[in-house]
Amino acid sequence: MTAFTCYNPVKLVFGKGMIAELKTLIPPDVTVMVTYGGGSIKQNGVYDQVCAALAGRTVIEFGGIEPNPRYETCMRAAALAKKEGAGFLLAVGGGSVLDGTKFIAVAARYGTGDPWAIMEGRAPVSDAVPLGAVMTLPATGSEMNTFAVISRDSTGEKLAFASPHVYPQFSILDPETTFSLPDRQTQNGIIDTFAHVMEQYMCAVGRAPLTERMAESVLLTLVEEAPKVKASPDDYEVRANLMWCATVGLNGWLGCGVAAQDWATHMIGHELTALYGIDHARTLAVIMPAVHRHQLARKLPRLAQCAVRVWGIQTGDDAARAAQAIDRMEAFFQAVGVPTRLSDYDIDADEAGRRVAERLAQRGAKIGEYGDLGEQAVREIVALAR
Amino acid sequence: MTAFTCYNPVKLVFGKGMIAELKTLIPPDVTVMVTYGGGSIKQNGVYDQVCAALAGRTVIEFGGIEPNPRYETCMRAAALAKKEGAGFLLAVGGGSVLDGTKFIAVAARYGTGDPWAIMEGRAPVSDAVPLGAVMTLPATGSEMNTFAVISRDSTGEKLAFASPHVYPQFSILDPETTFSLPDRQTQNGIIDTFAHVMEQYMCAVGRAPLTERMAESVLLTLVEEAPKVKASPDDYEVRANLMWCATVGLNGWLGCGVAAQDWATHMIGHELTALYGIDHARTLAVIMPAVHRHQLARKLPRLAQCAVRVWGIQTGDDAARAAQAIDRMEAFFQAVGVPTRLSDYDIDADEAGRRVAERLAQRGAKIGEYGDLGEQAVREIVALAR
Repeated sequence: MTAFTCYNPVKLVFGKGMIAELKTLIPPDVTVMVTYGGGSIKQNGVYDQVCAALAGRTVIEFGGIEPNPRYETCMRAAALAKKEGAGFLLAVGGGSVLDGTKFIAVAARYGTGDPWAIMEGRAPVSDAVPLGAVMTLPATGSEMNTFAVISRDSTGEKLAFASPHVYPQFSILDPETTFSLPDRQTQNGIIDTFAHVMEQYMCAVGRAPLTERMAESVLLTLVEEAPKVKASPDDYEVRANLMWCATVGLNGWLGCGVAAQDWATHMIGHELTALYGIDHARTLAVIMPAVHRHQLARKLPRLAQCAVRVWGIQTGDDAARAAQAIDRMEAFFQAVGVPTRLSDYDIDADEAGRRVAERLAQRGAKIGEYGDLGEQAVREIVALAR
Repeated sequence: MTAFTCYNPVKLVFGKGMIAELKTLIPPDVTVMVTYGGGSIKQNGVYDQVCAALAGRTVIEFGGIEPNPRYETCMRAAALAKKEGAGFLLAVGGGSVLDGTKFIAVAARYGTGDPWAIMEGRAPVSDAVPLGAVMTLPATGSEMNTFAVISRDSTGEKLAFASPHVYPQFSILDPETTFSLPDRQTQNGIIDTFAHVMEQYMCAVGRAPLTERMAESVLLTLVEEAPKVKASPDDYEVRANLMWCATVGLNGWLGCGVAAQDWATHMIGHELTALYGIDHARTLAVIMPAVHRHQLARKLPRLAQCAVRVWGIQTGDDAARAAQAIDRMEAFFQAVGVPTRLSDYDIDADEAGRRVAERLAQRGAKIGEYGDLGEQAVREIVALAR
């Protein structure tokens, strides 16, 4: 096991009716800015529950944070938070709303200059408005981590930052709030969670036996629960299981003692979203099988382990098992209802590969668990997803 | 899944050489009181590493905290901490040292009256001296939880308390510090960890699929790693795996969404330690198989699941698998090197059962996952461990 620090001070409050706990979770006597997205929370009762819990407080609102939250939108929200002296930000919605709110929290406390410097890694995060979340879409794990991904129109960039200053003080997860999710969002959440676990687990360097088994626990639970949700979208247990998987998938636990992580799929996927507007999770379903096929020789022992423990494959040698594990993963994505090929989106794989590879090379991105996947390798990977 | 709150703000710093991090982890300009046990830290180099990291600071020491830390000892330490104005307590040692230090932290900030009232549940914890730990014995999970168990000579009691005020601010775990542990301590740590996981996992009420699999992950890793340690006590990877298992075994993660926990084994075991002086872990190895055999019918589904997933038992019906799972657990304890019967300690099971049952009944203890195991049931359980 590699040396590690495990630190996660988020108070996760999980269960039916827990939105009422906002009463005690948000400090009194501060102006609360509630942030949200396209307004689905006003249809599904979540907004009403939040308002009821915040009755009697000074509350302002900022709606309209979009999927793949935009820098331009967040900067308007940060200006409002500053102007109104917001002392607490409450994100109500999915990972995009919370990611956007994390950036708003930092931007509202940023001195002079453009806080985009943080996204470019040119400025540190030294302060943020305290924040919390009511999470209505299990997917990103943002409810219990320090990450946020923000897109910028003017440059076509999609970048990530991380800081302990943007740990939510609390996150409320009520599985009932996910009953009314569109199928597409539910599917995306399952794929996103699965991919987060894989990016941490599917490396060949070093061993962390307990942490690996915990990663496999999330994968096994997703494989077991995902097929049930379409027929029973209001089954509390199924929704709760998917939600808990999403949180554990990216709250740091699965990185403890792990020598290397990969994230090649996410880096390539982010470029496909920026270039072609494909949903984040859907880019992962397209790219992850291709990354694993391209890197099969290097990832062989872990892929073979995954074959046995997650997919129950008992026959064949390690190479055969590894190849089958990738096929089973791709079939799982398709069974969830998510396409796994660029042709499903009418995108030319060769052109996409060229454009993605160029953009990543321009930023000097280190790609893959060894950080050594260059332009040629990226083009080959994208080509495998044709 | 049952509603739950997951909150654990401990910063766990895990790996070789991490004791040097004390420099940055302990706030400057406070008097640090270092607490420890019988002095093994002075033989194995840990004390020297701590002194080097604290060079230039105001440090006082309190040694001699015993296994099953005693109230009387802790009260002397609390008096010293008060007198010297200790602003930070650093526990260096195993779970007993840290448990004792948690009580010292509370007692040093307790107003008038006897802080034993906290142990009896008659007074709340409202304050504690900030504390941290250098953990040298993987077992109790105390490094990342709010629990402490304290014994009192004058009454022969052994009681537990819990409070978020005694979360360590940090815990440093360097697996190398465990290379020199006596076999007996290593064995006890493995049993203690195994039992902690089981007490949270082995219940029949409700389902929490991901959390159950995480519990099985710890059990599987213990079963895999435990046989290696006697032959290779200085194998870093084996020691690291056992240490990480101990922390995850009782840091709250395995309780997330779980409807009921049991802890009957611990409650009965504590009485056996108080009455006969048997090591804590060794009482668990004796009592846990007996509890499971006594409660087999009620715990059948989970025992059968454990049989398949942890012990790889594929044959027989659920009842046969469940019975086999208990036999395999008892055989595992014995293979670790720990006896599993009261007769191994020359203790009369009938008399022990009578005395334990009386003591628990006097305190009105609620025992078992349903809290309904009365005097008769406790006598029967202890008799099964003859």
